[in-house]
Amino acid sequence: SDALVIAGVSYQSRLLVGTGKYKDLQETQLAIEASGAEIVTVAIRRTNIGQHQNEPNLLDVISPERYTILPNTAGCYTAEEAVRTCRLARELLNGHSLVKLEVLADQKTLFPDVAETYIAAQQLVKDGFDVMVYTNDDPIAAKRLEEIGCVAVMPLAAPIGSGLGIRNPYNILTIIENANVPILVDAGVGTASDAAIAMELGCHGVLMNTAIAAAQNPILMASAMKKAIEAGREAFLAGRMPKRRFASASSPIDGLFF
Amino acid sequence: SDALVIAGVSYQSRLLVGTGKYKDLQETQLAIEASGAEIVTVAIRRTNIGQHQNEPNLLDVISPERYTILPNTAGCYTAEEAVRTCRLARELLNGHSLVKLEVLADQKTLFPDVAETYIAAQQLVKDGFDVMVYTNDDPIAAKRLEEIGCVAVMPLAAPIGSGLGIRNPYNILTIIENANVPILVDAGVGTASDAAIAMELGCHGVLMNTAIAAAQNPILMASAMKKAIEAGREAFLAGRMPKRRFASASSPIDGLFF
Amino acid sequence: SDALVIAGVSYQSRLLVGTGKYKDLQETQLAIEASGAEIVTVAIRRTNIGQHQNEPNLLDVISPERYTILPNTAGCYTAEEAVRTCRLARELLNGHSLVKLEVLADQKTLFPDVAETYIAAQQLVKDGFDVMVYTNDDPIAAKRLEEIGCVAVMPLAAPIGSGLGIRNPYNILTIIENANVPILVDAGVGTASDAAIAMELGCHGVLMNTAIAAAQNPILMASAMKKAIEAGREAFLAGRMPKRRFASASSPIDGLFF
Amino acid sequence: SDALVIAGVSYQSRLLVGTGKYKDLQETQLAIEASGAEIVTVAIRRTNIGQHQNEPNLLDVISPERYTILPNTAGCYTAEEAVRTCRLARELLNGHSLVKLEVLADQKTLFPDVAETYIAAQQLVKDGFDVMVYTNDDPIAAKRLEEIGCVAVMPLAAPIGSGLGIRNPYNILTIIENANVPILVDAGVGTASDAAIAMELGCHGVLMNTAIAAAQNPILMASAMKKAIEAGREAFLAGRMPKRRFASASSPIDGLFF
Repeated sequence: SDALVIAGVSYQSRLLVGTGKYKDLQETQLAIEASGAEIVTVAIRRTNIGQHQNEPNLLDVISPERYTILPNTAGCYTAEEAVRTCRLARELLNGHSLVKLEVLADQKTLFPDVAETYIAAQQLVKDGFDVMVYTNDDPIAAKRLEEIGCVAVMPLAAPIGSGLGIRNPYNILTIIENANVPILVDAGVGTASDAAIAMELGCHGVLMNTAIAAAQNPILMASAMKKAIEAGREAFLAGRMPKRRFASASSPIDGLFF
Repeated sequence: SDALVIAGVSYQSRLLVGTGKYKDLQETQLAIEASGAEIVTVAIRRTNIGQHQNEPNLLDVISPERYTILPNTAGCYTAEEAVRTCRLARELLNGHSLVKLEVLADQKTLFPDVAETYIAAQQLVKDGFDVMVYTNDDPIAAKRLEEIGCVAVMPLAAPIGSGLGIRNPYNILTIIENANVPILVDAGVGTASDAAIAMELGCHGVLMNTAIAAAQNPILMASAMKKAIEAGREAFLAGRMPKRRFASASSPIDGLFF
Repeated sequence: SDALVIAGVSYQSRLLVGTGKYKDLQETQLAIEASGAEIVTVAIRRTNIGQHQNEPNLLDVISPERYTILPNTAGCYTAEEAVRTCRLARELLNGHSLVKLEVLADQKTLFPDVAETYIAAQQLVKDGFDVMVYTNDDPIAAKRLEEIGCVAVMPLAAPIGSGLGIRNPYNILTIIENANVPILVDAGVGTASDAAIAMELGCHGVLMNTAIAAAQNPILMASAMKKAIEAGREAFLAGRMPKRRFASASSPIDGLFF
Repeated sequence: SDALVIAGVSYQSRLLVGTGKYKDLQETQLAIEASGAEIVTVAIRRTNIGQHQNEPNLLDVISPERYTILPNTAGCYTAEEAVRTCRLARELLNGHSLVKLEVLADQKTLFPDVAETYIAAQQLVKDGFDVMVYTNDDPIAAKRLEEIGCVAVMPLAAPIGSGLGIRNPYNILTIIENANVPILVDAGVGTASDAAIAMELGCHGVLMNTAIAAAQNPILMASAMKKAIEAGREAFLAGRMPKRRFASASSPIDGLFF
């Protein structure tokens, strides 16, 4: 009943996961299973989903029958590369139109190049893709990407692979308040509470990879993340108690915060 | 297998809950059920567990057969009152020795009076009680209370009823590192992520009341808290990824943090 | 000797101030004097610096002989408006080429429209202006604006008029590390410590208006800000002690931070 | 006119400094001069102020004519040691009654042993000392120490020598709100903004040592601290602007804070 709807499809899980950085395909499979994710994102430039016929194919392990495969453009640094990568993915996946667009600015920070992202998003929307789009946490950029026609906007919590958690909750909150499409935090989550915080802010979902894959026990961390996402969602829906300096205070604290 | 052991008894749930501030006894019951708690704390000075024979008795709803009842001394401002209250509880509960000691300093802040708490704890330990003890987040006081013989030490995250979350994670962490008894955060948790953070720090459990009872939907929040505690515990056991400014960084950030 | 150099001109003060929101022109004058600022920014669309010949002229109080007047484009929501406003300022100020560009996205958040800002900056640089540019705290946008030829880049600490302080110090730090032009925090500073923190991060200066004008005592706050900027600059140059959990720790804390 | 009054004596400077950890006596002298401090604290168990007649005497450099010498009990782990140390100091300083009491709990954390501190404070007050007392940031302990008769209460911001800044501003604020004696933050300040924050909270002063002595340039850091303390004090007196999510917001933010 509390489904996440993206491009007209309903999902019970609000946790989306990646497939990179695992020890082997078996660990990938077990962690993804433990996460309860229904949408699994795949870096087309780094992962074999059929481009290389004689090599291990991720889709043998993460079956498109069971999971919604979300091809992403990780490793693309121009709009052109990103668009080309999406088209390749669509071919490999038999016309599948859902993609995750990311156009990166540089290899060090992995921050998005927002201007290039606009260009790629416009092209992809025009080409009939359902575009979920990685962006920085600028509320203006997020709104612009929605206006371009993206089906979901995915601001970073912190740099990709940093594990720093939500650096600027105000920005994420403003993005959510302004949005008419699902907002999913993508990148920067480091541990379970980070995911819960994202959901408590009102995010519709969270996408993560390193936080699970780079934990000492990825499978157990995947389970933790599943529960954290559900906990944060329920806490958001339940409506938390007000913050007060003391229980005896007649009104919530205002202005005063550290 | 990952049990919380207090005074020799094993518990599967690491979430302990109170019974105050609910709309009615039915809501109390449903919320406690949804929380999955096995230990339920009861303020002896405010709750009828048999002192008043013709009034509704909480134990009719929260059965001692099913739950471990943890009598607490909320509302006691001296060691003497607290000790007397524990003795009354023991009588009412047929010799039950597990109690939660709190000696408050004043009605506004509800901060503990640590010096009085030492006195009460010494007396109660001598009297054969198994004392779980509410204290501030001073690592020295926490250690002292363990040395006195308390079976669990319960530092505050923030003032009782404030919902401010863990104000000083360093102190909680130091308390945990130094401890040979379970450390449970007691007071101050406001929402699910606060509970997860406590567990990720290595706390053995969390006790809460207002965060559930004062949510707009207490039963849903109880469920959120159950999952958050499990998520935080699993994330702790799973071993989180290191924090880095960027994925490309060769080593975790040191010193630099905001 | 430790001068701030912008467009080839050296300044002793690293505090830049606005002229809006004061009670009257006298308060404006006294606060600016107390701030020690040498650069004073003026919103051309809201302030008379000669456009309206029979009205009070700010320049009678804030003399261009004594202060570097920095015309800004506050209130402009398109590149075109901003460019036109800068040209008007140049005329009114006899060919003065230093301007502060801001292209806002909406009236509620006052966040910059970064894409429009790029367009305006390109035009203004081409027209021979020395452009100091207001932007969000995206390190990629900051670098792009430097590459366009802006003489200083001015990321927000928090929304204009919010007083929330530096929301994302990591971003500001990354902007500084990547920059070859002065980086000045513009917008969001609320009190003295916020200004000190900006300078300790390595910012070359801070621009503020509301934090001074909306204090209960603007003149005293202006003095506080002057000292805070100097304190933060000196602390940056002096090289702070490392952070450690305890003095006895053999090495600075790494990874662990709250 | 805005003097700090301790034990009936007025001071213009609100920055108190220690003498430990400097390279040599000359650096000590220059840093203290640059700090503008009028009260200089000296660890009697570690510093020669006359106990050892043939060794360099700190008082030759930091003259009691010019500075108020504040003997402290650093390195004392029991009330008895601390009291004895204060008596020795009084002798060496010709009947001087102002002392800084610290009774530490252990060598690792250097946290105060609050219970022992109560005992020592009671004895010293009875003996006619004017006691400035180091304590943790527990508002209840701070009030108790005032009631015992201490002339100033000095809660830690963070562990001694940690440089972590104010870990729990709410506690410091509560201590200040409840106090009738000066409250000075003692221990934990790491850089200029930390000192400013303490003063903005309403602290009457700040005592520091490592933050200056362990900076790469102690003399410049001393100057930074002088300005930061003044900036924070002036900002406190000036009355800061309210925090708002956006300038357009009709009222300050309430409850919402990160």
